[in-house]
Amino acid sequence: MAKKPKKVDAKSAALTTKDKKTLSSLRELAGSVVQSAERSRAPQFDVPSRSLSNVKFNQSRRIIEMGSGSNRRELFNLAQAKSFMQTVLVGSKCKGLIEQGKTASIRQIFYLCKHTIKGTSENTFDQQEECDPIIEDVEVMLNTLREELHVFASNRGTMVGNITINDSGDVIDCSRMGSGGYSIPSIVEPDIIEFTKCDAKFILHVEKDTVWRRFNEDKFWKEHNCILTHGGGQPPRGVRRLLSRLHNELKLPVYCLLDNDPWGYYIYSVLKQGSINLAYESARMAIPDARYLGLRSKDFKDCELPDSVQILLNDQDKKRANQIKNYPWFEKKKAWQKEIDLMLQNGFKLEVEALIAKDISYVTEEYVPQRLEEGDFLD
Amino acid sequence: MAKKPKKVDAKSAALTTKDKKTLSSLRELAGSVVQSAERSRAPQFDVPSRSLSNVKFNQSRRIIEMGSGSNRRELFNLAQAKSFMQTVLVGSKCKGLIEQGKTASIRQIFYLCKHTIKGTSENTFDQQEECDPIIEDVEVMLNTLREELHVFASNRGTMVGNITINDSGDVIDCSRMGSGGYSIPSIVEPDIIEFTKCDAKFILHVEKDTVWRRFNEDKFWKEHNCILTHGGGQPPRGVRRLLSRLHNELKLPVYCLLDNDPWGYYIYSVLKQGSINLAYESARMAIPDARYLGLRSKDFKDCELPDSVQILLNDQDKKRANQIKNYPWFEKKKAWQKEIDLMLQNGFKLEVEALIAKDISYVTEEYVPQRLEEGDFLD
Repeated sequence: MAKKPKKVDAKSAALTTKDKKTLSSLRELAGSVVQSAERSRAPQFDVPSRSLSNVKFNQSRRIIEMGSGSNRRELFNLAQAKSFMQTVLVGSKCKGLIEQGKTASIRQIFYLCKHTIKGTSENTFDQQEECDPIIEDVEVMLNTLREELHVFASNRGTMVGNITINDSGDVIDCSRMGSGGYSIPSIVEPDIIEFTKCDAKFILHVEKDTVWRRFNEDKFWKEHNCILTHGGGQPPRGVRRLLSRLHNELKLPVYCLLDNDPWGYYIYSVLKQGSINLAYESARMAIPDARYLGLRSKDFKDCELPDSVQILLNDQDKKRANQIKNYPWFEKKKAWQKEIDLMLQNGFKLEVEALIAKDISYVTEEYVPQRLEEGDFLD
Repeated sequence: MAKKPKKVDAKSAALTTKDKKTLSSLRELAGSVVQSAERSRAPQFDVPSRSLSNVKFNQSRRIIEMGSGSNRRELFNLAQAKSFMQTVLVGSKCKGLIEQGKTASIRQIFYLCKHTIKGTSENTFDQQEECDPIIEDVEVMLNTLREELHVFASNRGTMVGNITINDSGDVIDCSRMGSGGYSIPSIVEPDIIEFTKCDAKFILHVEKDTVWRRFNEDKFWKEHNCILTHGGGQPPRGVRRLLSRLHNELKLPVYCLLDNDPWGYYIYSVLKQGSINLAYESARMAIPDARYLGLRSKDFKDCELPDSVQILLNDQDKKRANQIKNYPWFEKKKAWQKEIDLMLQNGFKLEVEALIAKDISYVTEEYVPQRLEEGDFLD
């Protein structure tokens, strides 16, 4: 097998406008390093800081944003030489991917970059944990999304509903996807996914695949003319970006049906305002107008649920609830303060599945329709 | 909200032949309990034993099977009364699901069953961990698959390729599924999924979604006329059952591309021979003719991979490797003994992603095509 000559892939892929822009940013970065070297100056670049102190909540845009802080990374600095080299290496591999019209996972980027430096026993990277933040550095330096660098994340998440999309040239009618649904890919940028036709009036995003299945089986999206998605818990980037695009481009309201626990609150927080870790992406991922449809702390009484569905809060839950209560985007909202306080006062949390105690289809036939009709949700 | 009268769903779903058969088994079970009571005898039933001692490898069928051992479960036995009641309760909820034409996850079954018994402070179930084995008891007692009881598992896994299916009335052309793919549902029984048209000549099953994406992006399935699936690691039941159906009904060979590590071996083992825990399902899930295409321990040398892709085996890996080596279905196969020995001798494991060190598309353009052409795989 080793004898067969390696195929040389001379063809370069047709580049999209976005690809050309990303490539030009990458070349600019490399160019600045080369220029410094040619002028006998120390090559360096500034990496916007992703530390917590450089993250703030923008009240008017209602998203978590990065500040203007940055850190200099220099080649001729013993503490920074390795990460300087790693940054250039990751940039160069992304350039290669874009030029070939191919994509890679963060794990695959790690393997693409990892090698032993000739004449030494030093590896460019030893662990993926070293490589992941470098990918984020490149993203943030170039003000680009990971997906534009042709790097993808996992692809949990499924969609079904009254929308037709074009995915890489294939027309996919999401109202004809059976019980399985369309698997939301990790890269959903406009050059990959186009919205061809949409009759849906809103999006119902549910937390888990199991709840999604209940809604799909009951053809909720057909009766209520909507799009139904889930993200397998904390939604991966592809799902967040797709929801954001559907919301912004098609003006579809997004309603979230999540568990009545700190984890459900947090998922909502990330969908709505962006995450602290990935603050630089908020502008293109966050949905400040998303609404929290439930489950709510008041539902235990309102829906007359039996005691048996209560799950007692543990210390970790209480701690997380208090942290979330103090998030700047929750702390000024009375309804959210009340919601979290009531959960703490209840002393228990509730899963969406708890509504099954009423009836297997209570959630699709009564709970959600009633909330939508009455406009009973949290902002 | 509490005031609105609960909708009564009087309509019962159109039952399939399979549904009628499952219902009749459930009724028979319940009937035997009632009959005992009416005759003033102690209600009881025999639950086939799922303990390791009742599991054996059937050499001629080449699957892991259950023996004939069973345990009696009696109502008038203090140690068994609760599990007796739980078994009847789960059976009755499954009956309800089938009659309504609805499905539920194991979590949802737990919620359907969990309640405080009137006049006591005793719950039917406290934790889901109590409920899951009872569901398995019902399956095995009735000799039915969980899916036939309308209980579903998670739905990781995606499919694309030259096949058209009918999923719940929707015709889905898996060769027109873009970058996302068709999300394999958790219930893929013939009354839900029909194979409408298939041009594909084989199935390539890969371990991870990230590798799947590489193959889909390179349109491997188009060039090699096949079906491409992944199961997000250890494939969930829906994926295993679908592969088994595709293999048996359409006579498609199944080739597995998994990591060169004990976990990859184990995934293969489960796909091929069934699992020890769920031995009673092997006959309908296992694919004794599945083939292990790679990665192989010899690939490090054969493919001239750089040292940097080696991942050292830890003690746990070595222990697992030796366990797997001694599985009855591996211990008489010289090629597998050699494969596992060589991994232990190498002292390292390899992920499929390691092939990227050669080229991003080495796996799709050289590795797999060459193996297929040369028939170079393990049985």
